[in-house]
Amino acid sequence: MKTADSALETTMRPPTQFKDQLLNQADKEVYDVLVIGGGAAGLSAGIYLKRYLLSTLIVDKGKARSHWMQELHNYLGLPPNTPGRDVLKQGKSHYLALEGVYLNGYVQTVIDEGETFAVHVQTGRKSPSVAVFRSRYLVAASGIIDHLPKLVDQQNVFDYAGYNLHVCLICDGYEMRDKRAGVFGSSESSFEVAFHLGWFTPNITLFTNGEFEVGEALRDRLTQKAYKLVEQPIAHFLGNNHQMTGVELSDGSVVQLDAGLVSMGSKYHADYLADIELEYKGGNLVTDSMNRTSHPRIFAVGDLKVGMNQVVIASADGALAATQIWRDIRQAEGTRRSPLMSTA
Amino acid sequence: MKTADSALETTMRPPTQFKDQLLNQADKEVYDVLVIGGGAAGLSAGIYLKRYLLSTLIVDKGKARSHWMQELHNYLGLPPNTPGRDVLKQGKSHYLALEGVYLNGYVQTVIDEGETFAVHVQTGRKSPSVAVFRSRYLVAASGIIDHLPKLVDQQNVFDYAGYNLHVCLICDGYEMRDKRAGVFGSSESSFEVAFHLGWFTPNITLFTNGEFEVGEALRDRLTQKAYKLVEQPIAHFLGNNHQMTGVELSDGSVVQLDAGLVSMGSKYHADYLADIELEYKGGNLVTDSMNRTSHPRIFAVGDLKVGMNQVVIASADGALAATQIWRDIRQAEGTRRSPLMSTA
Repeated sequence: MKTADSALETTMRPPTQFKDQLLNQADKEVYDVLVIGGGAAGLSAGIYLKRYLLSTLIVDKGKARSHWMQELHNYLGLPPNTPGRDVLKQGKSHYLALEGVYLNGYVQTVIDEGETFAVHVQTGRKSPSVAVFRSRYLVAASGIIDHLPKLVDQQNVFDYAGYNLHVCLICDGYEMRDKRAGVFGSSESSFEVAFHLGWFTPNITLFTNGEFEVGEALRDRLTQKAYKLVEQPIAHFLGNNHQMTGVELSDGSVVQLDAGLVSMGSKYHADYLADIELEYKGGNLVTDSMNRTSHPRIFAVGDLKVGMNQVVIASADGALAATQIWRDIRQAEGTRRSPLMSTA
Repeated sequence: MKTADSALETTMRPPTQFKDQLLNQADKEVYDVLVIGGGAAGLSAGIYLKRYLLSTLIVDKGKARSHWMQELHNYLGLPPNTPGRDVLKQGKSHYLALEGVYLNGYVQTVIDEGETFAVHVQTGRKSPSVAVFRSRYLVAASGIIDHLPKLVDQQNVFDYAGYNLHVCLICDGYEMRDKRAGVFGSSESSFEVAFHLGWFTPNITLFTNGEFEVGEALRDRLTQKAYKLVEQPIAHFLGNNHQMTGVELSDGSVVQLDAGLVSMGSKYHADYLADIELEYKGGNLVTDSMNRTSHPRIFAVGDLKVGMNQVVIASADGALAATQIWRDIRQAEGTRRSPLMSTA
């Protein structure tokens, strides 16, 4: 345990040197817990784990979902327009202050070795290399990322996504109240969210981007609600300063909007678990009330697990998983592990 | 719904006038949700409920458990020394900005009228009066409060409780690492926490305050761990500037300590539910994964429900309960409720 923690005391050294040291020591250490993902769930788990004196490594590929949230409106304790990246920044600094070990890297695969996991991590962009880290427990906190409309100029989508082109009805339905709202779907079933958005605004236009057919039954339901349906391909979003004001279609016509909701499903960042048998529901990992998966030493937290995708819930997930892991290890070791003992 | 919200637009008026108006209108209104308790769980529920456009009344008796926390060390997104009261203050201001209705008062009893609840609220200290509010749903967020050692000078206890006289091992075990820690119990079973505290420090003294007997079996276990047992009554805590430095016993002898952990159980603030049949486990309400109790229109969040007592979990609880209530009401109403519609 000591190796990694003392390595972290070197955070004042040039990052590269610290990282080299961490990678070189990879095979000398078995962490209590390896957390995959440095978003809200992973950072909260990391903070709790370090406060339980458990050796912890967070491996983060960057760009957590909440990193893209320009304004978090519903997180108790924070002003209602806090950028998601501020929460992540504060959380990371909190975790590092507890001497948690943090590595930028991409987890390729996890092998269950019985008592430990072998976690293959790719680091470095210019000259990628792979190191194998080992841990007794694993916290899958790598989340999801929303699919966005595919346009010729993808930057045009990024200009508005996370601003007033929303991806979460629960988070931002309120922001769309009584506005002209566009719903951008990827299938008939993805349009169901429009009927829930109808709680907040009656002025809804649905866009297929010319990618799928809408059958008579759904057309009738849309007509009943006076929702509009646009089946032409989208040329690009209109707007400025990250505020989307509408959509220009392939024929040059324009639909004016005040806000948008993308409902195109998500990519699940959990390929590294492919070789381990786990219980899923849809793409989500099934967990118990402490966020343990069907594997006794793998926990899942945040958007990866079954449940609501909310930052505050992800934070609580991390607390629950960390606490159960502490209970497990405490029971297994039977004895105390205080700093004095571990340096003895 | 409109009445209460427009009443709240008058928060700029003198508080008394606003409160009188609220009390006078009590019988004219059925709130969607009445939240009992303005701690972390209740405020988070309130924020989510208002963002779902549900009319919401929070009744708070004051002095939530987190109000007493001088430093919150494990709440993602906040600096690791944030006072609990800052979270509550930010949360209340957030809720009020969403035009949530908030009343200082004490809930005496709740009567289940079938479609609605009648909630009897006592307000005013000098000349108390009782008003009856009605709601379709109830969120029990009134929490618990820790029993503290009873000394002749109770202020002496309050001087240190929430500073380095802790009440939560999960929160503050880390703060006690390798320190001389006192454990203040109220029964043999309340001393079990000492063995878990042993994870953080080997230097533990247990205090009965002369209030209960310790049998041979427990004595043996304490001896095995080299924990000390003090059975004399406590005269008072020693220290200054809210930092407890030890205990003076009734015979004048002194035990020096660096920190303390009170383990004397809690008072549950849920007497108002006495007339409603609900499933409990110990003193805690049993809930499902969305925090619904065994009563379909009563939710329980935070420390009242079965689960871990953590601020970040209470915040997530509020989000879950509010969302389920929104889903219920949305399904029941079948139609949208946007601001435009509700003023139509």
